[in-house]
Amino acid sequence: MYELGVVYRNITRADRAAADGLGALGSATVHEAMGRVGLMKPYMRPIYPGAQVSGTAVTVLLHPGDNWMMHVVAEQIQPGDIVVAAITADCTDGYFGDLLATSFQARGARALIIDAGVRDVKELQKMNFPVWSKAISSKGCIKATIGSVNIPVVCAGMIVHPGDVIVADDDSVVCVPQALAAKTLAAAQAREANEGEKRAKLASGVLGLDMYKMREPLAAAGLKYID
Amino acid sequence: MYELGVVYRNITRADRAAADGLGALGSATVHEAMGRVGLMKPYMRPIYPGAQVSGTAVTVLLHPGDNWMMHVVAEQIQPGDIVVAAITADCTDGYFGDLLATSFQARGARALIIDAGVRDVKELQKMNFPVWSKAISSKGCIKATIGSVNIPVVCAGMIVHPGDVIVADDDSVVCVPQALAAKTLAAAQAREANEGEKRAKLASGVLGLDMYKMREPLAAAGLKYID
Amino acid sequence: MYELGVVYRNITRADRAAADGLGALGSATVHEAMGRVGLMKPYMRPIYPGAQVSGTAVTVLLHPGDNWMMHVVAEQIQPGDIVVAAITADCTDGYFGDLLATSFQARGARALIIDAGVRDVKELQKMNFPVWSKAISSKGCIKATIGSVNIPVVCAGMIVHPGDVIVADDDSVVCVPQALAAKTLAAAQAREANEGEKRAKLASGVLGLDMYKMREPLAAAGLKYID
Amino acid sequence: MYELGVVYRNITRADRAAADGLGALGSATVHEAMGRVGLMKPYMRPIYPGAQVSGTAVTVLLHPGDNWMMHVVAEQIQPGDIVVAAITADCTDGYFGDLLATSFQARGARALIIDAGVRDVKELQKMNFPVWSKAISSKGCIKATIGSVNIPVVCAGMIVHPGDVIVADDDSVVCVPQALAAKTLAAAQAREANEGEKRAKLASGVLGLDMYKMREPLAAAGLKYID
Amino acid sequence: MYELGVVYRNITRADRAAADGLGALGSATVHEAMGRVGLMKPYMRPIYPGAQVSGTAVTVLLHPGDNWMMHVVAEQIQPGDIVVAAITADCTDGYFGDLLATSFQARGARALIIDAGVRDVKELQKMNFPVWSKAISSKGCIKATIGSVNIPVVCAGMIVHPGDVIVADDDSVVCVPQALAAKTLAAAQAREANEGEKRAKLASGVLGLDMYKMREPLAAAGLKYID
Amino acid sequence: MYELGVVYRNITRADRAAADGLGALGSATVHEAMGRVGLMKPYMRPIYPGAQVSGTAVTVLLHPGDNWMMHVVAEQIQPGDIVVAAITADCTDGYFGDLLATSFQARGARALIIDAGVRDVKELQKMNFPVWSKAISSKGCIKATIGSVNIPVVCAGMIVHPGDVIVADDDSVVCVPQALAAKTLAAAQAREANEGEKRAKLASGVLGLDMYKMREPLAAAGLKYID
Repeated sequence: MYELGVVYRNITRADRAAADGLGALGSATVHEAMGRVGLMKPYMRPIYPGAQVSGTAVTVLLHPGDNWMMHVVAEQIQPGDIVVAAITADCTDGYFGDLLATSFQARGARALIIDAGVRDVKELQKMNFPVWSKAISSKGCIKATIGSVNIPVVCAGMIVHPGDVIVADDDSVVCVPQALAAKTLAAAQAREANEGEKRAKLASGVLGLDMYKMREPLAAAGLKYID
Repeated sequence: MYELGVVYRNITRADRAAADGLGALGSATVHEAMGRVGLMKPYMRPIYPGAQVSGTAVTVLLHPGDNWMMHVVAEQIQPGDIVVAAITADCTDGYFGDLLATSFQARGARALIIDAGVRDVKELQKMNFPVWSKAISSKGCIKATIGSVNIPVVCAGMIVHPGDVIVADDDSVVCVPQALAAKTLAAAQAREANEGEKRAKLASGVLGLDMYKMREPLAAAGLKYID
Repeated sequence: MYELGVVYRNITRADRAAADGLGALGSATVHEAMGRVGLMKPYMRPIYPGAQVSGTAVTVLLHPGDNWMMHVVAEQIQPGDIVVAAITADCTDGYFGDLLATSFQARGARALIIDAGVRDVKELQKMNFPVWSKAISSKGCIKATIGSVNIPVVCAGMIVHPGDVIVADDDSVVCVPQALAAKTLAAAQAREANEGEKRAKLASGVLGLDMYKMREPLAAAGLKYID
Repeated sequence: MYELGVVYRNITRADRAAADGLGALGSATVHEAMGRVGLMKPYMRPIYPGAQVSGTAVTVLLHPGDNWMMHVVAEQIQPGDIVVAAITADCTDGYFGDLLATSFQARGARALIIDAGVRDVKELQKMNFPVWSKAISSKGCIKATIGSVNIPVVCAGMIVHPGDVIVADDDSVVCVPQALAAKTLAAAQAREANEGEKRAKLASGVLGLDMYKMREPLAAAGLKYID
Repeated sequence: MYELGVVYRNITRADRAAADGLGALGSATVHEAMGRVGLMKPYMRPIYPGAQVSGTAVTVLLHPGDNWMMHVVAEQIQPGDIVVAAITADCTDGYFGDLLATSFQARGARALIIDAGVRDVKELQKMNFPVWSKAISSKGCIKATIGSVNIPVVCAGMIVHPGDVIVADDDSVVCVPQALAAKTLAAAQAREANEGEKRAKLASGVLGLDMYKMREPLAAAGLKYID
Repeated sequence: MYELGVVYRNITRADRAAADGLGALGSATVHEAMGRVGLMKPYMRPIYPGAQVSGTAVTVLLHPGDNWMMHVVAEQIQPGDIVVAAITADCTDGYFGDLLATSFQARGARALIIDAGVRDVKELQKMNFPVWSKAISSKGCIKATIGSVNIPVVCAGMIVHPGDVIVADDDSVVCVPQALAAKTLAAAQAREANEGEKRAKLASGVLGLDMYKMREPLAAAGLKYID
């Protein structure tokens, strides 16, 4: 967030298999597997329901009302990437529409995560190009001031480094630092494996109180039942 | 909202037939029939469109970032109930997901109304378990502090007592106090009966100005027409 | 926004063909063609996805929690109009539901744009009557205080004069002043014509950096590439 | 919040000495002594800094943009009361100014707590009549619809019954239910007595880690120190 | 709000005596005298308490994050003016600080009303140059895109034409259209004259219920007293 | 933001003289000298006006409603430090009051920057211990879950590394990365030196249009003057 006017071309990306594996598990499982960190703020919402993606982050820092750097970041996209766009101050303008989406998709991008606004959402859905954003707005941008590409950025409250894994679905957007991708994948898969059995028990009417053995600690904490 | 650490097991519930009847009428008609009271704040939104439910409230008070009491309230659910969850301070964390929903549904709950966040919204829709919430978020919760079950709570600005009727649809969530359920149902049905005729007249081009005889009071209030 | 208690009956409306033509182009293209002005704030959202409309504005100014003037404005609607409703102070109450929509639709209205709340959203979708609003709420209104019809209003941050063209879609709501309708239509069509070729180039992998010849000005602005 | 059109004249008020004693301790100490409940939401702010008051609640429920009931509640004020005003839907209008404050003060009211707006804030400060509110706004109100006086209300997220104790200062507004006033006072005074010694220790450089014996539980929770 | 790239140099200003007279009465009285219209939204707050000003509006429309036009509007200021700044999209950046204030003050400006952010607030208070704004922020602006000066703008929800009277104090900011200035002044003065007597009565313990003869209409509206 | 349960004891701090020098210049000048980056979001406000401080950051990451780590970070404070507190999800609870402030001050802390709430603000002002926060609230915290000390955090939208320089005043809070402290100080001092002369010119009536030679580029951008 502190270095303006630079484009880092050679970034290291998280392992592709790990990135893909994390996407299959979804944001909640991945976030829990990391120890309950990594989430962007909940004002980030998908522009249409049902998409679930993961990919490696290429980052871009832009200025309010100025989307010039969107064209710069396009060139740095590799297949399997997700573009993460941060702004130097709060802004809801429409930084991105169907033309840029066509370009991003042609380069192999899987999604855009932007802490600002987007437009052409009906076309983006038709193109099957998912976006998580703070706002939807037709407000056009100028192209006057340079930001940066592939520096660490803060997007919706979370630090994202280039090459980190992004997982996004109808619930949230989560960032997994590159160095933690493999470990998080293993932990998340273990967690997931565990869930089927729990679900079956709960569906049969077993209570979480019993399944998780909570009655004793609740009583110890002072919980009283009154008839 | 003032008593912590207690679970009231034996609550009186509103009459089931009244609760079911109110659900069929929807939140707007019910709220009008009560004299325009009972609504939760409009930031409460369904996690998917199209659900319309009613049921008797079991209430739970939780702390920010702590969903321990969700497991305690599960045991108090009876078929036809709706869980109403309040938090002691503003929080958007994801207190509820598909595992808890499996448990709630197994106990007979029809919906969750929560003044906080939920997750696994795609699965909840598949399960046909509707939720009205303030936020959608993967943020996980701890289990460290006890709250209460079946005390009066404030959820999204409205007082809810255990056993009250909750009606929720795509418009809003409304609470009907238990003692008013039968009377409100009658008033709402009368109101509804009245609407078909009005709709037909308006569809034929009759103006509300004439149907409701508003021209005279508007003129008395000083309204001027200028050509 | 300054004149209360009046209804202007004889307003001039923008040319119908221009109004219809602008609707086909959508809010983003129209807004850009105007020089990036005319947009309402992005908190205005459609109550259901997919609608794209345009029409001539009839305006109404109402008071918080009071929808009396909705019945007054209904009489002033002509086929092809869109009602634009402004409130004298922030309010999320439900000013409009299926009965009023039936009346508006019978008069030929194509949509409602309201800087407040609406209700009966499921029925409105079935009726195919689109609304862009700040909120969805069952909260009922009183009928006690007069406002005005067909005066200039501020709706969601934008000045709208009676007779102006409104274009609304999944992205935004934009107002085109009557005097600018024809000129804006021409500019927007030119812009649109231009987009197909650009889209094809971008889809083929050509970068915006090259297509828009941005490399030189970016370098002039100081952008550095680091390997 | 459910009964409109009634004024309860004979309410029981909390013990005056308890109410006064709680005021001297401030909102944070009182809230902690209650077990961390009772607070209104933090958007409630004093209109000028430095006031710290307590009193017994007389409650009033009003409609958006309508302050008629303010005149009704004035008559029910007794010396030592604090008026708690709730609105049936979100509103920032200016329900209260220097004329009403003159009347309230003449009746013996110590403060107003209102989940809406106030005006004449400079004059209110000169009169030494403190208000905690959601907004400051000159927006005037009408007098058209009746609400209620001395029914239970929800003000800024908290249930307030008539006769409860309200404590307000620069930090927050807290409500102590009448039945808990004496017990809360005792607990709060014990807490307060305890603070002087702690403060002295901390000022001398003793760490909370040691004073509260936190090192062991922190280590048990897994905290690691890295040099 | 629709015309970019123009500076109107010869605007008509409201009568100076009327503008000054309105300032002495304050925003609440003026707003009531206009029939309860003209207010900007309550998120506009003074950067320091105690200032009460009025003046004639010179307007400026700027883009997000771009304060170039602030220098253009400076030249159009005449003694007794208040600058009213609107932005084409929501923005909290600091458009204005002590250097621009020095220039504005040298030109005779009495205040700035800006629907965005300002900085150097401590220095502005020392200079006795009041500002009403949406935010306080050090965020700097670029100078890249032209807007307009002295066109009609929407500032914080209200239409302001160049030459209108602006009245601002600790409560709110109100705009009085030029054509209504004299009439509003007369009405506001009459209202003010009336208030002293009312205040004295209320201070003596007379209730508004009696002074305004509200008991009968309240009973007619159905208000019930319960002992 | 990704590593939980660790306390880094040996951090490198920015040069003390640079840190102190930056504080004297204020947040706006420092932010501009960095190239317009480094600012926290404008919702961060001082709890009382007039404080202007700088210091080296010690960081702490906490959970919603849990201030246990505040006691852990206290031990890591060295004279001249400023504590920067981030939360893993949005929260307005009161994490900090006069007891913790006593401890922090005894350790040599100059201020607290917290992306959450504080309480005891009257006492904090008396102690001359400034805080910049998102909220003021009496809401108490639990001590149940461990976070981290001296890891990189995101506070109010900005990345802060331990040892970075924090500058805070009535305008904003800005973070200067340790490695940029000396260079930023030099640039900020040069900027400041430049301002006195500009201020004198503007005060004498010279316009920014002329002083900054803007007339030509404005005309080139298309600005038209209309008489």
